[in-house]
Amino acid sequence: MEMPQGMERLEKQFDFLIELDKMKLVERRSPIYAGMRRENDAEHSWHTAVMALVFAEYAPEGADPRRAAEMMLVHDLIEIYAGDTFAYDAKGNEDKAAREAAAADRLYAILPPEQGAYFRALWEEFDAMETPDAKFAAAMDRVEPILANWLCGGVTWREGNVREPQVWARMEPVREGAPALWPVIEYIIKESVKRWILQE
Amino acid sequence: MEMPQGMERLEKQFDFLIELDKMKLVERRSPIYAGMRRENDAEHSWHTAVMALVFAEYAPEGADPRRAAEMMLVHDLIEIYAGDTFAYDAKGNEDKAAREAAAADRLYAILPPEQGAYFRALWEEFDAMETPDAKFAAAMDRVEPILANWLCGGVTWREGNVREPQVWARMEPVREGAPALWPVIEYIIKESVKRWILQE
Repeated sequence: MEMPQGMERLEKQFDFLIELDKMKLVERRSPIYAGMRRENDAEHSWHTAVMALVFAEYAPEGADPRRAAEMMLVHDLIEIYAGDTFAYDAKGNEDKAAREAAAADRLYAILPPEQGAYFRALWEEFDAMETPDAKFAAAMDRVEPILANWLCGGVTWREGNVREPQVWARMEPVREGAPALWPVIEYIIKESVKRWILQE
Repeated sequence: MEMPQGMERLEKQFDFLIELDKMKLVERRSPIYAGMRRENDAEHSWHTAVMALVFAEYAPEGADPRRAAEMMLVHDLIEIYAGDTFAYDAKGNEDKAAREAAAADRLYAILPPEQGAYFRALWEEFDAMETPDAKFAAAMDRVEPILANWLCGGVTWREGNVREPQVWARMEPVREGAPALWPVIEYIIKESVKRWILQE
């Protein structure tokens, strides 16, 4: 962005924040819960961040829900360049890691170096699903879209020809990342099969 | 939401999170920076929360940027029922406080009482603009949409017949809430007038 002279650091930060606006144009497979259109990455990031705060009490030991919310806010930024990869698309997921690393190289270079490294590390921590914050964050990232399927008749499952075992596998991180929510996930999957929303 | 029996607390939290999906349908006056449509409250909340993190180093003394980001995530929730009030709409702003208090009564009642009180207090703190977190949050809430006008030829200023003195008044919280950003705001306003993007 054009700036007054001598504000190089601020200029980089504004450029980054302006680039992030493109999250509002990255379409996900999941619909908004009202059902009439797909949601975008900015909306998903917001919704999962709020979830981390509302479900804070169920975070695993050692997790800091506010830091997990920060993680949610940036966990999909690399999709500005790498695009959204449908969770159940085996082929798209083959080269996902490489595409996302290239996207991160490009995106985080916009920021001042130490700040780019900070946000990149936060995303890498999320992606590795090893720390308590990242496990909790992964659970939020699973709960938000399964609610969309539950509330909208399984639309992305049907579109993607997804079957029950794939959903169990996809939801697995909830079991450890937010154990108190696991019975709700079980209920949703079992009821979805019973009601023909999800194929066995 | 339908739930397994004996999970009343979780049920309230899920109901709240499902209700929040409506933020994706609350249209603001501001366009997304790419310009082709207006942004919605979920997108705005996400963008301002990320801003609080990226601009963390400019927060006033005593502010906790991560807590300010939490504030951004929930600062507009009452608009699900009260609607977005255009910042420069004098008439709409007359009864804004009353409409928003009624909306808060309704929205926060969905949550378990102590949790509803927690999030409501966070919104009230934001709204009062008195604490360091709230002052910083107010600055983020101003910076995000002025960038939209700057990048999109002043579209909401033109639509609302807004003039320069109103923009100076509206941006005032940035001066105290994020003083390092104030020169950028000054630059944007002055250049906008010079380029006929904003009427004197």
